[in-house]
Formats: sequence, structure tokens, C-alpha cells
Amino acid sequence: MDIAQVLGIVAAIMTTTAFVPQAVQIIRTKSTQDISLGMYIILTTGILFWLIYGILIRQPPIIFANLVGFSLTFTILILKIKYREGNGRNKN
Amino acid sequence: MDIAQVLGIVAAIMTTTAFVPQAVQIIRTKSTQDISLGMYIILTTGILFWLIYGILIRQPPIIFANLVGFSLTFTILILKIKYREGNGRNKN
Repeated sequence: MDIAQVLGIVAAIMTTTAFVPQAVQIIRTKSTQDISLGMYIILTTGILFWLIYGILIRQPPIIFANLVGFSLTFTILILKIKYREGNGRNKN
Repeated sequence: MDIAQVLGIVAAIMTTTAFVPQAVQIIRTKSTQDISLGMYIILTTGILFWLIYGILIRQPPIIFANLVGFSLTFTILILKIKYREGNGRNKN
């Protein structure tokens, strides 16, 4: 494996698992007022499209990475909606 | 262009621009306590690796998408650090 491939794999793992600390933080604090609902609606839909794209072109790495990414961002989106009511300030 | 390619382009645009509403919200509210610092450190670094990967394999779409993505997530990371001090609750 050359340096580019190694970098690509590390990049894929990082941009996929980056959402774990955010999900953990929300579960712990139950506070989501600073998190943009718009961001997670667009991001989750975009990752879902990447997933369908991966299925259509039959590329397991794209399917797998976006399945993990979708699960995490969808979880954050659900938590954002769930804890929205409990927030004191204006929502965005 | 087939359906897979169209879906891939739409997916790329969505997962890149999704960060715009989050950046706008932070600029407006100056509040970042619910946003995970760890997420944006890992995500920004991961996107930087995607960018270097794109340069190494000479793929303009990967370079362009990750240049935009890096600019947006790096902006959110800087805003998170900038407005960290002003937050009342515990940081994560």
C-alpha cells in the first residue's frame, strides 16, 4: 500500500468516527441547543445518498463507511429533535 | 450521466455544504457549548487527510470537495475554541 492509500483509509475512518464524541456528549448532557438542526438534516440525507450511490456502483468500502456515518449522524439528528423541547433558548 | 453519478454529485454537495447552517448559527448565537470539540478536531484532521489524498492521486473532485469541507469545518473548530471561554456550563 502506498502513502496515498494509507492516508485515504485513515481519512475515511476519521471522518466517519468523528461523530462518536458528539453523540456521546449529547447523551451525557441531553443538551442540543447549539447544534444546527439544518446541518444534521442535510448531512444525514447526503450520507444516505452516498450509501445508495455505493450500493448502485457496488463498492463495499463506500457502502460500509456511509452505513457507519449514516447510523451516527442519524442518531445525532434524532437526539437533536428529542432534546429540542427541553432547551431554554431559541432553536435554530 | 446515470442515476448513480447524479446521486454521487448531489451527495458530495450535501455532505460538504451541510456545515454552512452550523457555522451561521454559531456566528449568530456565539454559543458553542453543545458542540463537541473532539468531533471537530477529528473531522477537520480527517478532511485534511482526504485533501492530501486527493492531491496525491491527482483527483480534482476530491481536492475541491475537501477544500470546501475543510474550510467550513475548520471555521467551526476555530469558532468553537473562540467562544469556549464564554460558556457557562462544563465544556466537553
